[in-house]
Amino acid sequence: MKFLGQSIAQAVDVELMGRYGYAIEQLMELAGLSVAESIAREYPKGRVLLCIGPGNNGGDGLVAARHLYHFGYTPSLFYPKQPNKDLYKNLLHQCVSHQIPVIDDLEAEVHKCDLIVDALFGFSFSGAVRPPFDDVLRTLSQTPKPIVSVDVPRRHSRALGCSPDMLVSLTAPKKCAEKFGGRFHYLGGRFVPPEMAKDLGIPEYADSSQCMKLGQLIGQQRL
Amino acid sequence: MKFLGQSIAQAVDVELMGRYGYAIEQLMELAGLSVAESIAREYPKGRVLLCIGPGNNGGDGLVAARHLYHFGYTPSLFYPKQPNKDLYKNLLHQCVSHQIPVIDDLEAEVHKCDLIVDALFGFSFSGAVRPPFDDVLRTLSQTPKPIVSVDVPRRHSRALGCSPDMLVSLTAPKKCAEKFGGRFHYLGGRFVPPEMAKDLGIPEYADSSQCMKLGQLIGQQRL
Repeated sequence: MKFLGQSIAQAVDVELMGRYGYAIEQLMELAGLSVAESIAREYPKGRVLLCIGPGNNGGDGLVAARHLYHFGYTPSLFYPKQPNKDLYKNLLHQCVSHQIPVIDDLEAEVHKCDLIVDALFGFSFSGAVRPPFDDVLRTLSQTPKPIVSVDVPRRHSRALGCSPDMLVSLTAPKKCAEKFGGRFHYLGGRFVPPEMAKDLGIPEYADSSQCMKLGQLIGQQRL
Repeated sequence: MKFLGQSIAQAVDVELMGRYGYAIEQLMELAGLSVAESIAREYPKGRVLLCIGPGNNGGDGLVAARHLYHFGYTPSLFYPKQPNKDLYKNLLHQCVSHQIPVIDDLEAEVHKCDLIVDALFGFSFSGAVRPPFDDVLRTLSQTPKPIVSVDVPRRHSRALGCSPDMLVSLTAPKKCAEKFGGRFHYLGGRFVPPEMAKDLGIPEYADSSQCMKLGQLIGQQRL
């Protein structure tokens, strides 16, 4: 299995929406669904706080929140920067229609929830973390609650030497996932055409679910 | 469980894309995925011929074909009227990128396949079936191969007194499904917000899959 660098990961997204003709709504729907399915495989039903960033990673999180609701979880959203784009506004509106609350008090919600989803920034993010996200990362780095990272294991984790409990890599694992040390590593985003899947070395999904547990696979390769 | 008449079913679709803010690409992706998942629950891997109509029912079929490919089936498409709309052109292009052949000789393909998916017309269709679809329905009515109907059990079936083997109702079962006599009745399209689900009497899905087997439920209600 290959771990993609940032420029290849970006090129893959461009190909999927260009040459392969996917709408971003399709890719995001399947990506977010795979995050929700991965969670449903490993964690009992309970309160899930989803921390949503301003870009596509956040969009995946909004989709995941809606599917988690359908799966019987009790999701809530912390979404401090809501971009003025129809794509995100619609995804948020769908969550609100599913009675998913958007909360203001992060600390209080972290205290109440059973699981946290970090859908803050994707692989394209670089540079310094600006307010209010610096505070968000600080809060997440201090909680004992299990964290699920969407696509990218959070940089605060590395700095503090702690790893998210679960990582859901989307499309294919990125370089930053290579040293992931949490308990559960899943792959989701089951939309890669066979030619591209072969090029990227994506392992074959076994069944008809939208996610695949990678732990054993990686373990075997390390032996 | 309620069975929706045509006007209510149309109003539901309007609400989902209007008040609830879904993009048609999202609804179609989840609907088509639920068709593929339903098939994967009941039929062994093999050759699946999908007969695709010119509207949304056909779009659901194109999405189902792609997911069936990912699930290890060998899909092919018969798609005699391809509308000049980006939505359908992109969905077809995604299938072609997945090496799914578009066939011309329906009779030959019906002979070779293990299973047929009828994604020809949805609940909005009314009036006479025009060429080339009259020939398509005739061919499907004469084959002993099992047929999976997407959302609507085909009218040729009623005329000839035979029923499709599987029906996958989408969003909620329609009136035409009430007398479905095939072996497997599934519900898919897991995107209905709770308020609307309550109004429509949609039963609760049990797990984290995108489809639900209705057979037992209907049986219980009939007792």
